[in-house]
Amino acid sequence: MSDITLQRRGPSAENMSQKAVNGTSHGGKVLTLDSMNQNVRQVEYAVRGPMVMRAVQIEEELKKGVKKPFTEVIKANVGDAHAMGQKPITFIRQVLALCAYPALLEDDKFPEDAKKRARHILAGCGGQSIGAYSASQGIECIRKDVASFIEKRDGGIPCNHDNIYLSTGASDAIVTMLKLLVCGEGRTRTGIMISIPQYPLYSAALTELGSVQINYYLDEDKCWSLDVGELRRSLTAAREHCKPRALCIINPGNPTGQVQSRQCIEEVIRFAKEERLLLMADEVYQDNVYADGCAFHSFKKVLFEMGPEYSSVVELVSFHSTSKCYMGECGFRGGYMEVVNVDPEVKAQLTKLVSVRLCAPVSGQALMDVVVNPPQPGEPSYATFTKERAAVLTDLAEKAKLTEDSFNNVPGFHCNPVQGAMYTFPRITIPQKAIDQAKATGQPPDQLYCMKLLETTGICLVPGSGFGQREGTFHFRMTILPPKEKLKYVLEKIKEFNAQFLQEYS
Amino acid sequence: MSDITLQRRGPSAENMSQKAVNGTSHGGKVLTLDSMNQNVRQVEYAVRGPMVMRAVQIEEELKKGVKKPFTEVIKANVGDAHAMGQKPITFIRQVLALCAYPALLEDDKFPEDAKKRARHILAGCGGQSIGAYSASQGIECIRKDVASFIEKRDGGIPCNHDNIYLSTGASDAIVTMLKLLVCGEGRTRTGIMISIPQYPLYSAALTELGSVQINYYLDEDKCWSLDVGELRRSLTAAREHCKPRALCIINPGNPTGQVQSRQCIEEVIRFAKEERLLLMADEVYQDNVYADGCAFHSFKKVLFEMGPEYSSVVELVSFHSTSKCYMGECGFRGGYMEVVNVDPEVKAQLTKLVSVRLCAPVSGQALMDVVVNPPQPGEPSYATFTKERAAVLTDLAEKAKLTEDSFNNVPGFHCNPVQGAMYTFPRITIPQKAIDQAKATGQPPDQLYCMKLLETTGICLVPGSGFGQREGTFHFRMTILPPKEKLKYVLEKIKEFNAQFLQEYS
Repeated sequence: MSDITLQRRGPSAENMSQKAVNGTSHGGKVLTLDSMNQNVRQVEYAVRGPMVMRAVQIEEELKKGVKKPFTEVIKANVGDAHAMGQKPITFIRQVLALCAYPALLEDDKFPEDAKKRARHILAGCGGQSIGAYSASQGIECIRKDVASFIEKRDGGIPCNHDNIYLSTGASDAIVTMLKLLVCGEGRTRTGIMISIPQYPLYSAALTELGSVQINYYLDEDKCWSLDVGELRRSLTAAREHCKPRALCIINPGNPTGQVQSRQCIEEVIRFAKEERLLLMADEVYQDNVYADGCAFHSFKKVLFEMGPEYSSVVELVSFHSTSKCYMGECGFRGGYMEVVNVDPEVKAQLTKLVSVRLCAPVSGQALMDVVVNPPQPGEPSYATFTKERAAVLTDLAEKAKLTEDSFNNVPGFHCNPVQGAMYTFPRITIPQKAIDQAKATGQPPDQLYCMKLLETTGICLVPGSGFGQREGTFHFRMTILPPKEKLKYVLEKIKEFNAQFLQEYS
Repeated sequence: MSDITLQRRGPSAENMSQKAVNGTSHGGKVLTLDSMNQNVRQVEYAVRGPMVMRAVQIEEELKKGVKKPFTEVIKANVGDAHAMGQKPITFIRQVLALCAYPALLEDDKFPEDAKKRARHILAGCGGQSIGAYSASQGIECIRKDVASFIEKRDGGIPCNHDNIYLSTGASDAIVTMLKLLVCGEGRTRTGIMISIPQYPLYSAALTELGSVQINYYLDEDKCWSLDVGELRRSLTAAREHCKPRALCIINPGNPTGQVQSRQCIEEVIRFAKEERLLLMADEVYQDNVYADGCAFHSFKKVLFEMGPEYSSVVELVSFHSTSKCYMGECGFRGGYMEVVNVDPEVKAQLTKLVSVRLCAPVSGQALMDVVVNPPQPGEPSYATFTKERAAVLTDLAEKAKLTEDSFNNVPGFHCNPVQGAMYTFPRITIPQKAIDQAKATGQPPDQLYCMKLLETTGICLVPGSGFGQREGTFHFRMTILPPKEKLKYVLEKIKEFNAQFLQEYS
């Protein structure tokens, strides 16, 4: 993987046009692979790529009674907590049910604090219905609750609800910000710095937008930490080809699970100021921190603690979601972004842009409100909520350690601690014979590995090549979400498979 | 408004780069009006444009006790049923509450058919939770229900659930399809035909994508009907400038409220086949048909009734939504598209593209399932559901007639029948003096009219210029959704205001 990914713009327009006029391709269809948007064609998204397609096929085959060496497909490819059996938080779902069907507000079975939240949310909705469109930026009272949450989280640093945009999951907000940033042609084309390994939403969005992806490498030997020297190297090289304008950080890391130190965040902010880069901080795993000595520090808080020299200058956009942390409510597509120091005229453009899609799903907005405004001491749901929340996070912490320990006992594996987030990204050994076979069949070697694992065990992972990795190294991403017993089974099966694989290709 | 809108690509990249390097603009921000994506900057979306911003300000002023000649702002700018006081359909909300909080499945107060639907939906969800991500194309059992619904609606014409994509409202699906279509440069740049007047999602998306918008005009004198001669004129002219590839139709019409005849749809399909255009049929108002002698005909049904010569060739994508019809559940952002005759390789690309955003909101998908699978005769909720549904549609039909009659009694207004959808789009008279004043203040004359109406009466409409109209004509769009008594008040106030306006500028 090279440092700069100059997105291809597809075959020349003239060729396409000629082909389409002749109607020779694909039975004369208007829309073909050759005549479609070539940026879209180049998009790759490994988290739901060929591995998952094959996994779904295998599930169908199992249903039809096809004999396999396993009885179920285990989709450890995606951070989908509920699909892995995690139970929803009672309080969250009570509030959502009350919002959906307000007749339940008269029902004695629902606790008073849940009703209070539901009434509060409904009062912010048009016609008191979550079926009404909200303001494009999101329901005002929810944005105010988000702002209070951020202030509390960041030790009192002010947050203005005018800077909050509720979104359709964090993905939507991230793509919207990238969309605003991309312009220019050739050497002035916008470049965006992303970590390698990265979460492939970033590369996919940049490909679609025809932007330049600038890779900076995390240091696997130092627990996937971010080094400013590497940022500088990457930026300097990129300036030969494009105009770098933003730096994306995922903290805690996906797929790599590292948690950034406060000092590292300070260095990144200094770098962004010096180099005039807008910072995009993807903080959707902010509650998922497990390792001793690690703590989540928001970019916003660190920025403001560095004083006005930084806090009044550096443009920072940070993202959060209802899909991860202890909630794991992926299906509701709730999220927000906070924009700091963004030009007011650009903010107006952002508001206009999101208005074209009318609004983010209101049920996801309601869910976000519960997340930022959970039961407080003294409220009837406090004890249950706190217990359920702690149970999820404690369990995840145990599974993080279990995974690390287990993988470091697998010959040929090297696994950094899962300090945070929901994934492990171990480095694996692939023998030359397997590499040669992968090349011959036109697939990345780690995809060959993962595909064989899937066919042998039913376990679906994502090859490291889908996230990016240093040339000549191989990895996979696995979520630590399966219930403990199932996770143990998965870890054991991978160990067994790996031994077979090494033997087969030795 | 000219026939072709060649989207501007903004200032030259060189200029931008220089400006940004000098840091002279906007206190040295990375992201400024001049250095942002210029396609996004050019986007306009009148439905939530300056009128609505001012309306929100006025609401704030009223709250602060500022004296106005009215006591509330009436937002008749957008088709937001619940915000206008329409009550949610009980059965829909019962199912959604059961899905959100399955403990309620044990509750005797919920009818058995609602529980059955909820169990069916939950069985299709990962971990039986609507908090899990769904497959990117949507939950399979819901796509099957959508396919059955379409088959039944279309008199038995087969529908394959593999051709159904659940989406975040119809807007999301429409933008996704346009995104696939746009490619080429200069004279081979993709052109997309849209009606004038149009729903500004189309123009906004085309601007953002840097596509060429090809305008064809609906015939106001023939009740906003679509004439194939006009399509041909528009297409021929456009071929001088771009490569036309798709034709968008909104039926029933937004903002114009016409319902297309079967014969007209046949002609459009013949035209699309001859001219090799992909058809995009926006059918989100398919249940909103009021006028005697009008009926909704789906493009899919007509296409298949025209025989294999057409049905095996013409690429058709049609769109539906949970936001309109009798449900009016805008906030849930539910929708689907059906793709017919689309190249399988392109379908695979479509699936990949939607997978980058993981999935549409699952609560919106669940809602769509209830819409396509409502209570049946013999089920406990059938009577109530049918009554509630009929009440909404009957009320809308009465309000459609009331609005037409009232506006045709206003001097200077000409109002076509509201055959369907939820809007009226009357032609209004603006005196030359007002036109001159608007020009002097740099705004479209109908915006001046609507802004004055808003300041005088609190009624928020959208100027016709936001939808497109023939040069020299002026209109506004108003939804017919307000409750009857409020609608009468609105109609009366507009009549009074219009008289004052004509006098003031006579």
